[in-house]
Amino acid sequence: MAGTDSRNDLEVSLPAGPTIILVEPQLGENIGTTARAMYNCGLLDLRIVNPRDGWPNPRAHAAASGADLVLDRARLFDSTVEAIADLQHIYATTARRRDMVKPVSSPRRSMPEIHREAARGERVGILIGPERTGLHNDDVVLAKAALEVPLNPAFSSLNLAQAVLLVAYEWRQTGLEETEIEMPQAGSRPATAEEVENLMRHLEDDLVHGGFLRPVERRPVMVRNLRNIFERSHLTEQEVRTLHGVIRTLSGRRNRKPSSETTEELEKPEESATSKD
Amino acid sequence: MAGTDSRNDLEVSLPAGPTIILVEPQLGENIGTTARAMYNCGLLDLRIVNPRDGWPNPRAHAAASGADLVLDRARLFDSTVEAIADLQHIYATTARRRDMVKPVSSPRRSMPEIHREAARGERVGILIGPERTGLHNDDVVLAKAALEVPLNPAFSSLNLAQAVLLVAYEWRQTGLEETEIEMPQAGSRPATAEEVENLMRHLEDDLVHGGFLRPVERRPVMVRNLRNIFERSHLTEQEVRTLHGVIRTLSGRRNRKPSSETTEELEKPEESATSKD
Repeated sequence: MAGTDSRNDLEVSLPAGPTIILVEPQLGENIGTTARAMYNCGLLDLRIVNPRDGWPNPRAHAAASGADLVLDRARLFDSTVEAIADLQHIYATTARRRDMVKPVSSPRRSMPEIHREAARGERVGILIGPERTGLHNDDVVLAKAALEVPLNPAFSSLNLAQAVLLVAYEWRQTGLEETEIEMPQAGSRPATAEEVENLMRHLEDDLVHGGFLRPVERRPVMVRNLRNIFERSHLTEQEVRTLHGVIRTLSGRRNRKPSSETTEELEKPEESATSKD
Repeated sequence: MAGTDSRNDLEVSLPAGPTIILVEPQLGENIGTTARAMYNCGLLDLRIVNPRDGWPNPRAHAAASGADLVLDRARLFDSTVEAIADLQHIYATTARRRDMVKPVSSPRRSMPEIHREAARGERVGILIGPERTGLHNDDVVLAKAALEVPLNPAFSSLNLAQAVLLVAYEWRQTGLEETEIEMPQAGSRPATAEEVENLMRHLEDDLVHGGFLRPVERRPVMVRNLRNIFERSHLTEQEVRTLHGVIRTLSGRRNRKPSSETTEELEKPEESATSKD
């Protein structure tokens, strides 16, 4: 909900995503959180086979956190065979190996194939079994491949909605062009080299003045080190101005007219003989 | 525990995975399901900052479905700053854009870098904010980058444990193969969050002292902007020491004894009655 227009999420740019089929889910909460996970990833078609506590289930709506669109469109079926009747490519999520001659893949590895199927306008369905037992072999057998998420072998049991999330997430990640790492500029623009250069000069001048860049023979290395720190920040123009202000403030030149060198000499605390760092 | 041997999951073959830091989580159930999602992906180090309902929380254990190992090892902290003090690379999960100059990446894109950091024996932490609001900007600013999961823009709010699951899942899925851009440390090591925090305090104190951070109501934004500049630099421990020296030199406090707190209070310009932050 969150003030969104429900037309938005249909996202016609992506081909219609896989249908999620929950087979005999036990808890209404898990149906709700499944709907939420689906909607997070732009999946809209949910089918439910023989839910233990009937359908509709108010607990599902309470747990969906606003993904009511998915629950309202969900369809109820008496058997897995009926639920998948109109679909063309069926995948079965499994947490443990079955004694079957059937390809076992992971959601990530299978997703390019699923995307190709969807792009051709073919209908894909993904079966998710009941909380306690997972899919029955009679359902797994309906699938062209088993999807197994590679997890900690010592603790691989996923919550129902978590399993749905990982499949739906892989659908969504594979479909979108990976965007490069973005660097928002917060209304500014990247500083020019000259602006950074002037900032570095300002800093160095004040440091020399304060006696920091000594001994003199080490000065080039120290200056280089300082420059590297700021180069790595990729400063914006606004930040360069802020840092000029920081330097002016710290060095007590804030209220100075630009060229009152002598005043500053007077203001500066004396370097006592004890200073040796 | 589903008959598993708890030694198994330590999985010495993988380098120690990221620490998950839940900042002010509201529901005990979500702490439990977070632990489950972590353990599913082999992550063991959970830290909790100011949980609303206290700690330990029996609801967390009930929801963990056997991931008690993670909950039993979880540590409680009073502030995010304390929780990350010993960590070296901090990432912040965010669902919405912040007005900050900070890299925004996705868990998938960042994971090779995180793996390289972990492989070098450096400590990585991932911040997760409270259910309702997500991370406060003051926490985001502590991070070197924001992690944003690309989801349905019309419905992108993830449950707490779902967000943890996606990050932990990406950790687990991403191999170590690709070694990319290296950042030589020039004989130093990445600074810890605590070292950077102390540096920022030093800078802020001296800026307040110099009258820079005025008007007072703009101070938080200005401080945040400054922190982002230095977070983006990924400072080494040696550079942190250099910058302390820079600040001391510029502010002419070079000869002060380290702990003249009271003097400083006296010296500090009075905050006028208008200050209300």
